[in-house]
Amino acid sequence: MEYMKVKGSILVISGPSGSGKTSLAREVCSELKDRAYFSISTTTRPKREGEKDGVDYYFVSKEEFLKDVEEGYFLEWAEVHGNFYGTSKRQIDEALNLGKIVFLDIDVQGHEAVRKAYPNIVTSVFVTTKNKHVLIERLKKRGTESEESLEVRLINALHEMKRIPEYDYLLINENFEESKEFIKSIAIASLIKTSKYDIDKFIEYWRK
Amino acid sequence: MEYMKVKGSILVISGPSGSGKTSLAREVCSELKDRAYFSISTTTRPKREGEKDGVDYYFVSKEEFLKDVEEGYFLEWAEVHGNFYGTSKRQIDEALNLGKIVFLDIDVQGHEAVRKAYPNIVTSVFVTTKNKHVLIERLKKRGTESEESLEVRLINALHEMKRIPEYDYLLINENFEESKEFIKSIAIASLIKTSKYDIDKFIEYWRK
Repeated sequence: MEYMKVKGSILVISGPSGSGKTSLAREVCSELKDRAYFSISTTTRPKREGEKDGVDYYFVSKEEFLKDVEEGYFLEWAEVHGNFYGTSKRQIDEALNLGKIVFLDIDVQGHEAVRKAYPNIVTSVFVTTKNKHVLIERLKKRGTESEESLEVRLINALHEMKRIPEYDYLLINENFEESKEFIKSIAIASLIKTSKYDIDKFIEYWRK
Repeated sequence: MEYMKVKGSILVISGPSGSGKTSLAREVCSELKDRAYFSISTTTRPKREGEKDGVDYYFVSKEEFLKDVEEGYFLEWAEVHGNFYGTSKRQIDEALNLGKIVFLDIDVQGHEAVRKAYPNIVTSVFVTTKNKHVLIERLKKRGTESEESLEVRLINALHEMKRIPEYDYLLINENFEESKEFIKSIAIASLIKTSKYDIDKFIEYWRK
């Protein structure tokens, strides 16, 4: 299909910690099976209980991370809450060539960088809770937050939310099943965005 | 939800006669049940075999149609192949207030008019065949076409296709089940487009 610029598509999912974005992204990705690829980020933040290297993140030291940055390994990277997070470019390109929907669980800065790098094939969703009280509840239940970092996360959440207009979709995550249906729908639709096609080439091919 | 400008959304489906857009739209609409509303157009074109008034179209005379135009009854109307087609505004607004996805099976001019009238809540798909040969086959099978009108329809198809860049999605309808999944996904996603929200109001509500 020479009239399709890239076979796959990119779905960026952002939102405050505690919004449920990662569970949603992972669950939908696994339901889509071969059609989707969940990009695993590299991070310097400490492993949480139950997390696995190479599944949840690639856990590396700050030294290793900064070396990768220097070598141009990352499509985007950012410092959040004092830790580094980055997305490897090669893995994404491989998945795109296979026609997959690449799920990226990244923050607002990462979204900006990815949109610049792949202007025609990015679709984005911002996931958040109904209100701040629900977010606080979820963060407390996670049990990994001190009172201080909770405060920091709330301030960050509000900062990120100011950038919602840069996103294509806003998902208020109240019901897991409903939210999954939205993410899945957005993911599938992303494959046939008009911006993915070279329309002149398509018309030429069509009328032959 | 005071931060949602309109509860529902509009899904415009356009494409050449014979692309299969109407069957797709109707089938997906019926699968979505209460969540969707298929807008029935008014037309002056002769009823085809098997078509029913009030189901496929509201069939009216040219005189009646032009009277409705004068009275501002239509959101959009157009002359295509010598016949008039129009979309009633009141029915759409009622469905939107109920939070439904309103399916509009209209042409490129209709799309332009609807986008102007509802800039924030319109999503659009252009449906076409893989190439012109498939379109010709389908039109011939329909058996309602003379050789002459077939030629006219092909020229019109190419004219419409030049306006694909105005659409959000391009669906090359090769497999009915796959195409249905795309339309359904696009329809569901349309409900949470960022442009449907007043983000400032939402943030104000969120932090309270």
